[in-house]
Amino acid sequence: MTSAVAPTAPLTHAVSESPSQIAAFADWMPAVQAHIEAALDRFLPSSDAIPGRLHDAMRYVSLGGGKRVRPLLAFAAGELTGAPLERLEAAACAVELIHVYSLVHDDLPCMDDDVLRRGRPTCHIEFDEPIALLVGDSLQTCAFELLTHDVFGDPARQIEMIRLLAHASGSLGMAGGQAIDLGSVGKTLDQPELELMHALKTGALIRAATLLGALCGEAMSADARNALDRYARRAGLLFQVVDDILDCTANTATLGKTAGKDAAADKPTYVSLLGLSGARHFAEELRAESLDALRVFGARAERLIALTDFITHRKF
Amino acid sequence: MTSAVAPTAPLTHAVSESPSQIAAFADWMPAVQAHIEAALDRFLPSSDAIPGRLHDAMRYVSLGGGKRVRPLLAFAAGELTGAPLERLEAAACAVELIHVYSLVHDDLPCMDDDVLRRGRPTCHIEFDEPIALLVGDSLQTCAFELLTHDVFGDPARQIEMIRLLAHASGSLGMAGGQAIDLGSVGKTLDQPELELMHALKTGALIRAATLLGALCGEAMSADARNALDRYARRAGLLFQVVDDILDCTANTATLGKTAGKDAAADKPTYVSLLGLSGARHFAEELRAESLDALRVFGARAERLIALTDFITHRKF
Repeated sequence: MTSAVAPTAPLTHAVSESPSQIAAFADWMPAVQAHIEAALDRFLPSSDAIPGRLHDAMRYVSLGGGKRVRPLLAFAAGELTGAPLERLEAAACAVELIHVYSLVHDDLPCMDDDVLRRGRPTCHIEFDEPIALLVGDSLQTCAFELLTHDVFGDPARQIEMIRLLAHASGSLGMAGGQAIDLGSVGKTLDQPELELMHALKTGALIRAATLLGALCGEAMSADARNALDRYARRAGLLFQVVDDILDCTANTATLGKTAGKDAAADKPTYVSLLGLSGARHFAEELRAESLDALRVFGARAERLIALTDFITHRKF
Repeated sequence: MTSAVAPTAPLTHAVSESPSQIAAFADWMPAVQAHIEAALDRFLPSSDAIPGRLHDAMRYVSLGGGKRVRPLLAFAAGELTGAPLERLEAAACAVELIHVYSLVHDDLPCMDDDVLRRGRPTCHIEFDEPIALLVGDSLQTCAFELLTHDVFGDPARQIEMIRLLAHASGSLGMAGGQAIDLGSVGKTLDQPELELMHALKTGALIRAATLLGALCGEAMSADARNALDRYARRAGLLFQVVDDILDCTANTATLGKTAGKDAAADKPTYVSLLGLSGARHFAEELRAESLDALRVFGARAERLIALTDFITHRKF
């Protein structure tokens, strides 16, 4: 028999505590981030596994940094449906690995040719270009392998989740958005064109993170799912508008990546289209629309509401 | 009522005829290849879909060429378990898209820097490097999305197939083999090291193609599955040994890709390790071991046997 031991110092939220049991958003966010860090560490192949250099590089780009916005969205959406932790971990890490792979390939010399990411040298700088290419390729594969893990319960639902993530990541989603972005340099896009590009490039994966999180729990009604989808689409755009604002207002040290590079590359952004105050106004509008979509969920959406406010007002 | 019409000329095998109904290997192979071509054309996003240039490039690299060895293996293995055509098409195309993505990334300047593939300019030559990067990324995603299609019947089996393909493609499979290959340039590998590299780089996907084809049909006994796995591992190695022989004996026009490039790049091959006649002898040994593994299947393995002979004696 074990006896209860009274703690002599205030407990910090350990990785083993379920984020869904934590009340305050300020405590919840680092707890989820710590969970994701630990889960990625567990899911990624060990550096001891052959080929060690590739696995080292996969771990270098995936661990030890990042806001983990997509995992946070998955966890927050999971609270709408009472999703169990082990499912949320696998689903959130799968989305994060897709995101990280896209960053590694985006930073390559033939794309953005960037040297700084999350405050550290980019993968092809720290390792080399061929390894960075294979790291991106392997992280994408790892994401889909993760979604085949034996924790999701219903295999039919699991297939739906894999389909959703694949569609959001591929040529009709994130990668397609990057291709439009490549073709847009030096061009003037109007607002609908810019929205399509971002809906694919950033929005599709943000939406997938949110829906996958909710799909980890109890089945939703069609109405609830539509409302969450409406939320996820607006939140995805909101995230991008705020990113554009930060790209021209924050400095490189705060962002942990090269600031001002969109303007330098003559890429169209919401700031170049609407001006800084116009972009800020648009962000507020999107925030209001996002929160409006969450009304049907009542108190269960508290975490998503707080996360939306965080996304709107973040400084990095 | 329709009356039977006697054909005035010998019928050629149309794309609509199921390959499993065709007796002769010489007829079966082009029929499967035509099926794969048509299925890929159907599965890949249309060039009309935004972004058109990315979809054009995905179609350019995937359609109109290739021996389709992996799809042929999937179809031949499918005959062991009576696999239906629509499942075989989806599974075989998924494996082929993984293969094509790996070729596109392998040909990039930071990897093999090759200009010729399947007798045509490589993707980054015909389009450009950023598009070639996104083409590879998107084809990988497309492969996994294909395996979520609603044709496979049992979702649990479908999850197993996705897991198998992911494991075969990622850092512990094909991409891992490429990383070992990168690290091996200018080194002398012994035979076990060379076998590990090829077991991952080429063998893993050949094995996956074979097992996925069989998984499209009736469930196999554990013994049958083990025998097929033994076949698939030996056949994967056989394919690579023959590739190494052709790389130093065939010319560029016949291969449709740059001949002699492994030797030029000082990469270890079976020919550099065993000499040309030693490599040929090893290929015959592997062929015998492969066929031995198929004995348990009796007459149902006829197609796999014929395909193994084709792989052994191919000239390109």
